[in-house]
Amino acid sequence: MDKLLAAALKDLAREVDAGFDTLLPVPPDARAPLYEAMRHAVIGGGKRLRPMLLVATAQLYGGSRAQALRAALAIEAVHAYSLVHDDLPCMDDDAMRHGKPSVHKAFGEAMAVLAGDALQALAFEILSDVNTFADPYVRAELVHALAAAAGAGGMVGGQVMDIAAEQGGFDLPAITRMQQLKTGALLAAAVEMGAIVAHVPHEGRVHLRGYAHDIGLAFQIADDLLDHEGDAKLAGKALRKDAAAGKATFVEQLGADRARAQAGMLVDQAIAHLAAHGQEADLLRGLARYIVERDR
Amino acid sequence: MDKLLAAALKDLAREVDAGFDTLLPVPPDARAPLYEAMRHAVIGGGKRLRPMLLVATAQLYGGSRAQALRAALAIEAVHAYSLVHDDLPCMDDDAMRHGKPSVHKAFGEAMAVLAGDALQALAFEILSDVNTFADPYVRAELVHALAAAAGAGGMVGGQVMDIAAEQGGFDLPAITRMQQLKTGALLAAAVEMGAIVAHVPHEGRVHLRGYAHDIGLAFQIADDLLDHEGDAKLAGKALRKDAAAGKATFVEQLGADRARAQAGMLVDQAIAHLAAHGQEADLLRGLARYIVERDR
Repeated sequence: MDKLLAAALKDLAREVDAGFDTLLPVPPDARAPLYEAMRHAVIGGGKRLRPMLLVATAQLYGGSRAQALRAALAIEAVHAYSLVHDDLPCMDDDAMRHGKPSVHKAFGEAMAVLAGDALQALAFEILSDVNTFADPYVRAELVHALAAAAGAGGMVGGQVMDIAAEQGGFDLPAITRMQQLKTGALLAAAVEMGAIVAHVPHEGRVHLRGYAHDIGLAFQIADDLLDHEGDAKLAGKALRKDAAAGKATFVEQLGADRARAQAGMLVDQAIAHLAAHGQEADLLRGLARYIVERDR
Repeated sequence: MDKLLAAALKDLAREVDAGFDTLLPVPPDARAPLYEAMRHAVIGGGKRLRPMLLVATAQLYGGSRAQALRAALAIEAVHAYSLVHDDLPCMDDDAMRHGKPSVHKAFGEAMAVLAGDALQALAFEILSDVNTFADPYVRAELVHALAAAAGAGGMVGGQVMDIAAEQGGFDLPAITRMQQLKTGALLAAAVEMGAIVAHVPHEGRVHLRGYAHDIGLAFQIADDLLDHEGDAKLAGKALRKDAAAGKATFVEQLGADRARAQAGMLVDQAIAHLAAHGQEADLLRGLARYIVERDR
């Protein structure tokens, strides 16, 4: 990871933690465990990739950092809720997340379901808050970008396809489509929401969408490669689950070498979409490279 | 139930079913079971009380019926998702809902979690749709009203309190607060969203909020009474679970007679908030009465 990105991610992680700490004060009533579970899910873990994409995009076009940060909290809340529900026994049944117990291990299954549900609602409450985004058009557009990316036409739809992929029988186009929904949609929404906050004009958005599309696919190929060859200790969770599950993946379809080459090509292509920008786009370039290098 | 309300509920049920049928076409891919599960949850069941409250409120102030209907689909999607998650084995573990198998019984637990999640996202996608609500202020306000009512500060927070209430030790103010969050917040949001669609001025909203507050509380007392003395066959699901669970309820605190009197008083009070209106508010009056009479 380059120094610029490392410093930016470090600053942002602190701001995201502080933002959730303010948004989720534990109330002095019977809801305390709900808030504790929500805080467990969103504070002090994760690389904050989606927030970074959103903030870096907004910054590139001179958008308000305060507004970008609030939108970043919303998309991170959706990402975090999806992990909480993913980890449930009836889903992936993962006991660890970000190197600590998953929410249902720490707070029980019912609380994990409800904390995830409340985090999704929180995301839309943040985005529709008149005190953050004075312009109602910005509020409505942010909500629409996130809701469309999060639901059956995006992330949740991709998760269902992912479950079906465990039965095998998915070819490369089907895997690509699945991954575009499962992780690509939310990564693309991060870039789109940054563009909304910064009022990026149409032409700029076309390039940003190309960038987002390419890093989304590169991200998932890298994820498959990590699952194939990564270090469970570094990842903070169990790996090589895909092969064990007999699941269709990019690596299984292409082989590791071709998959790696494909991810590299996508990163170059993503960076090419930023050609109109000088060094002020270096953060987005660094993010594109990091996405295939990260140790999960 | 009076004839006016019976006819209106019948018409609305058909429109809600048709609306969800259009919104959720089963796609010809691996996501098909997700859409089937979502359709199972929202089509052909439930009394559509929240949609009716929303549409009747909008209608009272001359709001667009088409817009009110779309907003009604959104709030019903949130209500339906909460029932899907409530019925999960790790929550209430209910096998039946609206006289048919609950979603996890019909589609499995993972699909029930995901269908619920996707229904919540759908709600906000509907409300932020520029093709339905041209005015971005209306879109943003609708989203905020629903998100605030659905999350940790509303419905989900109330559900967590409800779980805590099973341990006993809740007094009457605590039960009231719990119910205000658990069901009151969403019923109040239905009225508020109807007011947003119809651009109701401030003074009108104050009265509508009073109405919504009173019917919300009456609703929950009636629910406790039904659980205490209702007919499981008519309700289409198991009853008398609260007493079995040793849970704090209005009936347990007040006794059935005083609880019934309290619900009746709240209905009268709710109707008094509509005093400025003539017979054009009869639908809302009928709803207030129905809320304590219904057989669940």
